[in-house]
Amino acid sequence: RYYLTSCSSELCLCSDVLLKPCMSLIFGWYSFYYIHHFLPFMCLIPATDKVALLIGNLSYQNHPQLKAPMVDVYDLTNLLRQLNFKVVSLLDLTESEMRNAVDEFLLLLHKGVYGLLYYAGHGYENYGNSFMVPVDAPNPYRSANCLCVQSILKLMQEKETDLNVFLLDMCRKRNIHDDSTSNVVLRVTANIVFGYATCQDAEAFELSSTGFTNGVFVKFLKKRLLDDEKITVVLDRVAEDMGQFDATKGKQALEIRSSLSERRALTDPILPGDSADLAHAHSRQWAKAHELPESMCLNFDCGAQIKLGFAAEFSNVLVIYTHIVKKPTDMSFCQAHVTDFSQDLDVDPKLMNRETPEETGIYLLSSSLPQHCLYTRLSSLQKLREELVFTVCLQGTFTAMDDDHPIHWTKSVNIGKPLIARLDLHRAMRRNSCLQTCLMPHSPSHSPCHSPGPEHRHHLYHGSHQAQDYNRLSPQHRYLDIGEHLQGAVGGCGDIYYENLSQCRYDPPYTSGGLSSSPGRLSIPIETTDDINELQTVFINSLQLQPQ
Amino acid sequence: RYYLTSCSSELCLCSDVLLKPCMSLIFGWYSFYYIHHFLPFMCLIPATDKVALLIGNLSYQNHPQLKAPMVDVYDLTNLLRQLNFKVVSLLDLTESEMRNAVDEFLLLLHKGVYGLLYYAGHGYENYGNSFMVPVDAPNPYRSANCLCVQSILKLMQEKETDLNVFLLDMCRKRNIHDDSTSNVVLRVTANIVFGYATCQDAEAFELSSTGFTNGVFVKFLKKRLLDDEKITVVLDRVAEDMGQFDATKGKQALEIRSSLSERRALTDPILPGDSADLAHAHSRQWAKAHELPESMCLNFDCGAQIKLGFAAEFSNVLVIYTHIVKKPTDMSFCQAHVTDFSQDLDVDPKLMNRETPEETGIYLLSSSLPQHCLYTRLSSLQKLREELVFTVCLQGTFTAMDDDHPIHWTKSVNIGKPLIARLDLHRAMRRNSCLQTCLMPHSPSHSPCHSPGPEHRHHLYHGSHQAQDYNRLSPQHRYLDIGEHLQGAVGGCGDIYYENLSQCRYDPPYTSGGLSSSPGRLSIPIETTDDINELQTVFINSLQLQPQ
Repeated sequence: RYYLTSCSSELCLCSDVLLKPCMSLIFGWYSFYYIHHFLPFMCLIPATDKVALLIGNLSYQNHPQLKAPMVDVYDLTNLLRQLNFKVVSLLDLTESEMRNAVDEFLLLLHKGVYGLLYYAGHGYENYGNSFMVPVDAPNPYRSANCLCVQSILKLMQEKETDLNVFLLDMCRKRNIHDDSTSNVVLRVTANIVFGYATCQDAEAFELSSTGFTNGVFVKFLKKRLLDDEKITVVLDRVAEDMGQFDATKGKQALEIRSSLSERRALTDPILPGDSADLAHAHSRQWAKAHELPESMCLNFDCGAQIKLGFAAEFSNVLVIYTHIVKKPTDMSFCQAHVTDFSQDLDVDPKLMNRETPEETGIYLLSSSLPQHCLYTRLSSLQKLREELVFTVCLQGTFTAMDDDHPIHWTKSVNIGKPLIARLDLHRAMRRNSCLQTCLMPHSPSHSPCHSPGPEHRHHLYHGSHQAQDYNRLSPQHRYLDIGEHLQGAVGGCGDIYYENLSQCRYDPPYTSGGLSSSPGRLSIPIETTDDINELQTVFINSLQLQPQ
Repeated sequence: RYYLTSCSSELCLCSDVLLKPCMSLIFGWYSFYYIHHFLPFMCLIPATDKVALLIGNLSYQNHPQLKAPMVDVYDLTNLLRQLNFKVVSLLDLTESEMRNAVDEFLLLLHKGVYGLLYYAGHGYENYGNSFMVPVDAPNPYRSANCLCVQSILKLMQEKETDLNVFLLDMCRKRNIHDDSTSNVVLRVTANIVFGYATCQDAEAFELSSTGFTNGVFVKFLKKRLLDDEKITVVLDRVAEDMGQFDATKGKQALEIRSSLSERRALTDPILPGDSADLAHAHSRQWAKAHELPESMCLNFDCGAQIKLGFAAEFSNVLVIYTHIVKKPTDMSFCQAHVTDFSQDLDVDPKLMNRETPEETGIYLLSSSLPQHCLYTRLSSLQKLREELVFTVCLQGTFTAMDDDHPIHWTKSVNIGKPLIARLDLHRAMRRNSCLQTCLMPHSPSHSPCHSPGPEHRHHLYHGSHQAQDYNRLSPQHRYLDIGEHLQGAVGGCGDIYYENLSQCRYDPPYTSGGLSSSPGRLSIPIETTDDINELQTVFINSLQLQPQ
């Protein structure tokens, strides 16, 4: 059966490349034969459901910041949704948030489901176990501060999943500060696939650029992820593609670890079968955590009408955009902005109500947002403890009025708990959570707290290999530069609109935790698409691919 | 490049299965196109040489005996030779012999070589490192008594091999007696492939039968090993085949671990390139360890002529067969046998000079040996410290003589150091051997020597899963029964020829170390081929393969 299905797609490929002129005469017969003879066999192993948890950690409190995980999670989210996965995509989670997120992910699994975990961020591997580092991990961190991937796998096995895929986009260096030897004993389920971004004891890299680009792993993974092939075959091809990338030669190589005995593909169809009720319940549970507030029109007493729209960039990142639908004719100037968000959300007021999505940190969703709005990006929705209430503030001056001092109108808006906020991931970890710690056969003896040395996902300049490819790969501090640039860019801008606005909003102005503002620098919005295109040309040139 | 080469073979496959009637018209053009356009690309990545070390450990001194490793090593040897590998195949090695064998294996490697290590025997995996257990390992054993596969890989990487394949046919349970955490830091060479017979923390099985059959892994591996595909693809197919085998479901599943970024296949051609001199030297080194003594004719004074032939069953197992070429006409009875072998060899005199190869323990080579000879199997050639000198003894009675008492003639024969004996693997381990121990970051603290609990390759009856498939899988003691049966079968046989012979040879009879003889039982030679055929029918029935 494997041969035949494998044949079918390879054959299509052959026909494209080589045999187009000759194959048409046999293809009619072949298609007929294929549909009637092989499709029934292929459908013997569908998924009862497909669920993916994608976590990208970037804004570490005690460790170097990362950049690519955001783009990586975003791109994979889109691809996995095309494959009908229920995707939960989360950025910047603390330890308890990660554990709770995994608990919720496990709740979506049942017999026969395909479960996929993608993680991008800092990580390490000790004695064969992989650990994901939350954004609030201390420095140095130990296994107790981190999530053990093998422990998650063990819990997935208990759900009798039919496929367990782990795509670990993180470093696999040993953590010398963690000498505990966790021992997770797994069952022989013959359905486990690990795609590691890099080899044992090696690092995973992201690419340097002025814009937002993928890490090396996802850069190649996303080109193959939709291939209708067994997941091991897909990863094997990604490994080959990555192997031709000069910049990471000798530094990073994809590693596959698979015990998958059946021909399972991420493209497999979903047939809930006997577990239709469960599948339905889990669909509702997933949908509950992905409900966007409905767009709304606010009518102000002055006659102005403001439209509020909502979009989700990630499961825990909400975009609010506002637009003046109706302005009274006697109003000479009219502006609206949102403000007074819950302190839980940790939103930087300087980055709200911007004229372009990019200015507020929305790089990925920007092309699909309506134009000519003011945009606000609310991240860390998982921290929201109450319903999300905020104020829409309208400022206006009337032509009939003598002074230029604007009049303010406000309306309070309650959008409930949007997206992942519904799941209360902020709550203290459940007492019976199986994920609280790995099973430790020996009590961990803590090494003395000397200088940090955390295992990064990317820190090429700290490594021992210094090569000519460095200009293509970016070390941590380059990202930090860019970060400062963007975050601190507002203070000095000469836009009258924002000056007005800031007087209204920033009283007193404050600097958001951990990010230093540089008020003297100008905001230069980054056009994501341009940058990516430019970089991809560089990549293609460096790939040394044979011309087809 | 990958697409195109992959296409070509898949296309051939398609044509066989589906498209034969339709493809002939395009195949002429295709072949031309293929040879002129793609063959040059394919040849960009040949091997400079291909070398395989195969070790099968069966006769453990302090642990349960195994059986399948002999058949497994034999079958893989034949297959790998067909793929032009220089194969070193060794049975039953002690720790120092294993380390020396690996040292010799490493001497055959140089830049660009494909190196393959197959191991069948007891083993364990602690903290991601795999350990192979020598036949003389104490009970319990620790990492210092065993060979660490990752340490071997590290040494192979130093040789700049282009492909490193490890086929580990052993258990991967944790060894609770070994709490040392070895840490082998490997380079990122993107050319490492592990094919594990079983998953982490799981056992590998061999099949129960009255004859000699493969372990589960090789049973399926040997059907695919010659496939002209990337080695990862081959192993992935073996995993699928194995996954359909009911007997091991939930107990054993093949695991692949690969960082191979290029399309390397075991079928790749050998082109020594710049390293032709090295390749030549290594060929000589390999040939030196695989020289068979030339067959010889011995002329006795009485006029009889005895022919001695030699065959190699493994690199350390020699078969000697004797045949009376010329018998004087006045001689009524004439027999010849070999005797007086070096004590190093540890040959059981009761098992020498048998009428069928099977009686002396030759099950695998039997079909290719000449018939109507007396056969002697000399194993453990690596223990030979001096040249191999033995005595050929001729017994005869003349018609003219009154009494039936036979006359003896003897000739001493020196066949030098045959096969692996030339390499002196018995020597003490070299002081600078990198393999003496793994790199231990922590000094191993030895656990108290309570009851053994060694990790077996197969001990299904000891496990916690008891299922209805057990009659197909064999626990240790069943093999021991068979072992005793064969080894102890001679004493009570009623064959006059052997009674005569035994009076001459066994003075005094002794029991070879570690094997108890049961003189009352009859010798029932096992016909290997019949048994294998019978079992294969059982397997095929249990495979539940879709009809093609």
